[in-house]
Amino acid sequence: MERRPTITDVARHAGVSKGLVSLALNDRPGVNADTRARIRSAADDIGWRPNAAARSLTSRRTSALGLVVTRDPSIIETDPFFAAFIAGLEAVLSERGQVLVLSVVPDADAEERTYRTLAGDGRVDGFIITDLRRADPRVALVAELGSVAVTLGEPDVPSPFPAVRREYEHGIDDLVHYLADLGHTRIAHVAGNDDMLHGHARREQFERTAEALGVRAVVTPTDFSPEAGASATEDLLGTDPRDRPTAIVYGNDPMAIAGMAVAQRLGFRVPDDVSISGLDGSQIGRHVYPALTTLDNDPAEWGRVVAATLLDLVDGKDPVDRTLTPARLIVRGSTGAPLRNPA
Amino acid sequence: MERRPTITDVARHAGVSKGLVSLALNDRPGVNADTRARIRSAADDIGWRPNAAARSLTSRRTSALGLVVTRDPSIIETDPFFAAFIAGLEAVLSERGQVLVLSVVPDADAEERTYRTLAGDGRVDGFIITDLRRADPRVALVAELGSVAVTLGEPDVPSPFPAVRREYEHGIDDLVHYLADLGHTRIAHVAGNDDMLHGHARREQFERTAEALGVRAVVTPTDFSPEAGASATEDLLGTDPRDRPTAIVYGNDPMAIAGMAVAQRLGFRVPDDVSISGLDGSQIGRHVYPALTTLDNDPAEWGRVVAATLLDLVDGKDPVDRTLTPARLIVRGSTGAPLRNPA
Repeated sequence: MERRPTITDVARHAGVSKGLVSLALNDRPGVNADTRARIRSAADDIGWRPNAAARSLTSRRTSALGLVVTRDPSIIETDPFFAAFIAGLEAVLSERGQVLVLSVVPDADAEERTYRTLAGDGRVDGFIITDLRRADPRVALVAELGSVAVTLGEPDVPSPFPAVRREYEHGIDDLVHYLADLGHTRIAHVAGNDDMLHGHARREQFERTAEALGVRAVVTPTDFSPEAGASATEDLLGTDPRDRPTAIVYGNDPMAIAGMAVAQRLGFRVPDDVSISGLDGSQIGRHVYPALTTLDNDPAEWGRVVAATLLDLVDGKDPVDRTLTPARLIVRGSTGAPLRNPA
Repeated sequence: MERRPTITDVARHAGVSKGLVSLALNDRPGVNADTRARIRSAADDIGWRPNAAARSLTSRRTSALGLVVTRDPSIIETDPFFAAFIAGLEAVLSERGQVLVLSVVPDADAEERTYRTLAGDGRVDGFIITDLRRADPRVALVAELGSVAVTLGEPDVPSPFPAVRREYEHGIDDLVHYLADLGHTRIAHVAGNDDMLHGHARREQFERTAEALGVRAVVTPTDFSPEAGASATEDLLGTDPRDRPTAIVYGNDPMAIAGMAVAQRLGFRVPDDVSISGLDGSQIGRHVYPALTTLDNDPAEWGRVVAATLLDLVDGKDPVDRTLTPARLIVRGSTGAPLRNPA
């Protein structure tokens, strides 16, 4: 393998001292214009490139953003938000010559260690904080470490950092209204993790709207996995027909797909016997049969806006919160009027 | 926000000169044991940490591996290999205090620029090369840049780098035998990108086994997207019943799920009228109805072994190829004997 050219190589090639090369290539005074040009041309000839580690001592910029994801790896595979969000981040980062430093950790201890390492070792210019939890310790941690961050949604703790948010509650409200208008009077919500702020807010909105409309609401919290979606569905559809929900809203599309498969295996027609809706949208949700009604959250847009907001902050601009267009109800074949209603 | 403590702060706190602090904290001679202990204790007291940028000038280690993915962002969302592979990489990296530098780029030009930046700027210790193409230029590029890599599969160009490989062709052979034994005599393969070496090898094995068994094989190359899987399925099922395939093998699970949905929408029963199989395995494939027969590729295992192999190489160990256990045929409800066979 070839060795990378050093300043010594440039000096030899240009026939000048290493000190002069260093001054010239770092744009410092003390080198006349002709010599500076000769040194730059020698550096180009032999393919010399500045070393990021050396430069960052001066610029204190790493051109890297950090994303620490505290999830079980299997959830990362199945939550379509994750890959699409990364695609959105990368769309902005690659345009601006930035990279993403990604770390997936199993628990809050490893999470804290990783933030300390990435910030303490000066490896990233800032952090992207996803999956906000109640009383989330990461906001204070990043501030304590002297770094910056953007949060997805508003934390319930004081934060010096900009938030990117999307109105989701109105979408939940629209979805429950739509199902009630079709004639559903018993609607279940197979919810996500209630410790996460967005899961909690969605659940509360679901219950508020259902109560306002006089709809019976049953909520089952889960860990967002398709297994949990399948198992909750077996329980819901195994109840007495007079209690059984005629529509189920799941916390994400993969849970809804798994729930729909359970319903079909048990002989329920979708949507005639039970209507199924996902949340957050996903590409695969368009490609199951029947196609999945969902509340689209456009994770790629989240990624693009979060990356741009954080890069502005790193560039020294004032923190500015950003609000995305509200989540959009997408009606497809998996929801309809209840045909059998024995109650 | 707090400022990070510097060597100057440590010197002030310990009551010694900055020079002495620098010697002590860099394990250089010239400091007596008592003073060294006092300086270390002062550094601990005020929370001083070494700066990675400064340290890497000495150690030339970045504790980061690079993964440059040349894909359309929407494919990244829908190919379940990607997220599960990253989860496997991270399982090993986070244990060893390493991070992943991830860059998603749209084309070969951006890909080359990114390799040059990451290697030239000394930002990663090595690269993970996925999606090997025919005459792939990345192997020579990484060598030219003086970096190291691990390839997923064997490139068809000379490579100084270790390869991690998995026997997949026997699995394809098993799958086609299994379908032929059920009585299928016309089997279609909705293949992936034929420019990628693994897609090409799978297609060739499919055709070889089909020919050996006297099965009629139809191959449609696609871009691996569920849209392409859906559209190819409409074409295949729209043909004359005497030509129509009774089994379809797709290049990945999401294409198979999309194909199954098209079949069901058109009124074909799965598997009675048409058997459906994926490739590569995925969590969601277990959770559709009927559940998907597939050839499991365990992307998380790929990630774990690739990360460990590359870290060994970065540590200066000799390059060693690794062979994973062969891909495993997983039979589920989406395949069965053809009930209608009008030929």
